[in-house]
Amino acid sequence: MVALRSTRNLFDCGAQLAALKNWRLVIEYDGSRYCGWQVQPQVNTVQAEVERALTTALREKVSIQGSGRTDAGVHADGQVASFKTDAEIHAHRLRWQINALLPRDIVVHEVEPVSEDFDARRSAIERTYSYLILSRPVPSVFWRSYSLWVSKTFNIEAAGIGAKALVGTHDFSAFTVSRVGSMVRTVTAVDVIGDRPVGMAHKGGTRTEGLITIRITANAFLHHMVRLIVGTLVEVAAEKIEPGRVKEILESKDISQAGPRAPAKGLRLEKVSYPSN
Amino acid sequence: MVALRSTRNLFDCGAQLAALKNWRLVIEYDGSRYCGWQVQPQVNTVQAEVERALTTALREKVSIQGSGRTDAGVHADGQVASFKTDAEIHAHRLRWQINALLPRDIVVHEVEPVSEDFDARRSAIERTYSYLILSRPVPSVFWRSYSLWVSKTFNIEAAGIGAKALVGTHDFSAFTVSRVGSMVRTVTAVDVIGDRPVGMAHKGGTRTEGLITIRITANAFLHHMVRLIVGTLVEVAAEKIEPGRVKEILESKDISQAGPRAPAKGLRLEKVSYPSN
Repeated sequence: MVALRSTRNLFDCGAQLAALKNWRLVIEYDGSRYCGWQVQPQVNTVQAEVERALTTALREKVSIQGSGRTDAGVHADGQVASFKTDAEIHAHRLRWQINALLPRDIVVHEVEPVSEDFDARRSAIERTYSYLILSRPVPSVFWRSYSLWVSKTFNIEAAGIGAKALVGTHDFSAFTVSRVGSMVRTVTAVDVIGDRPVGMAHKGGTRTEGLITIRITANAFLHHMVRLIVGTLVEVAAEKIEPGRVKEILESKDISQAGPRAPAKGLRLEKVSYPSN
Repeated sequence: MVALRSTRNLFDCGAQLAALKNWRLVIEYDGSRYCGWQVQPQVNTVQAEVERALTTALREKVSIQGSGRTDAGVHADGQVASFKTDAEIHAHRLRWQINALLPRDIVVHEVEPVSEDFDARRSAIERTYSYLILSRPVPSVFWRSYSLWVSKTFNIEAAGIGAKALVGTHDFSAFTVSRVGSMVRTVTAVDVIGDRPVGMAHKGGTRTEGLITIRITANAFLHHMVRLIVGTLVEVAAEKIEPGRVKEILESKDISQAGPRAPAKGLRLEKVSYPSN
């Protein structure tokens, strides 16, 4: 009898585990104040803030899984994270609650139920990062925390030509500090977008011309990959190196051939894509 | 002889005064940290910061005249100020110097010589202010210091219709706290611009839709005039009042009829126009 009861208890416990539901969050953040996405002891991280807000709102310890880490100072429009809970969640109310609990530099856009096998990191099929550059004679007060200011030559066309060499499946050893595992990634697009005046508000200010976006989409990224690519394309745009050099740098697999790593503040994780999207 | 010498001295002195040259600055600032443009004792102001930088750069006490005051927390793309000095100025070098001396939330775009009779305030013929609104379900981390967030209905068309009533030469008593001098101003344009997705970077993020600009141009503005007009148009956009009410509010000359004053952080002095422009 004792054995039976024990079995029954285990079974109940299993049933309860099966009742855990899986949720997805889409999160926007200004990374300026944070030591990156991923929880680390002793420092502020975005993940820790979101977990704290969820834990308070749901009155249970909640751990979330992000689609990937972002470095200290990097921003996001659309970081995705998932978590499991057996709490009864009213999605709209929870979004409201956690946004009220979060600091003003983190905002949750979406809270939605997802299938049991969804994992923000493993299920992702593509990530898009944007890097913002301000090309004009003087810096900007409004874009100072979100862009790299370039006061000299910025040849958008040259950078665009250089960028083309990166599209495809390649070994990106030249553009990463990672040295563990495969260095092969598939870049589906690199675009250098600019060439027309852009207001801080659309059709807006006369003082905000010169914004240029370098946008890169890949199945996944290596550590510092976007910033090393951007640093290299900025050298192409500055006409310090020929657009044709980008292909040579890629093929060299040698990070010392690449340009300097562009600063974190210009970078944003724009979008993470999943099969269902 | 004594009298003659004295006259000569006066004449020299006059010649020296005539040698004062007149300069114009175009200044961008993030007003978040400042108690407005105008110098006041004990508090941070934009004018005080610019005067301090100029005084250091030119090694003489410099006072500047702005085109007009902006309130605490209001931003500018193109505030204009003028000052006189007999110092030999190399415009490009001075711009570089003062930008190096100024805090990062103030940037001087232009330093240029202007005619002797130019006065940033009195010579101005038109000012354009922009007010930025973010209309979407959740707030924005990137626009939080530069826009008013509106989570509910924002009927752009209704606000645009209401705005039309303000164009022309009117007594704007209903839209100001000023009670001294003439309340008559000439508004040449009020536009409510929105209706298409706008990225933080152009063609940019998927998370930054919903930016709306209310842009107002007038020969001059009364105290709090733009913010009271915006507050009223936001009520029209929220469908709390009919677009036709705006004309009635204007004609009432009664501030208690107007909407609430919109917060300073959404407002920017975009441009000041002069006859030579």
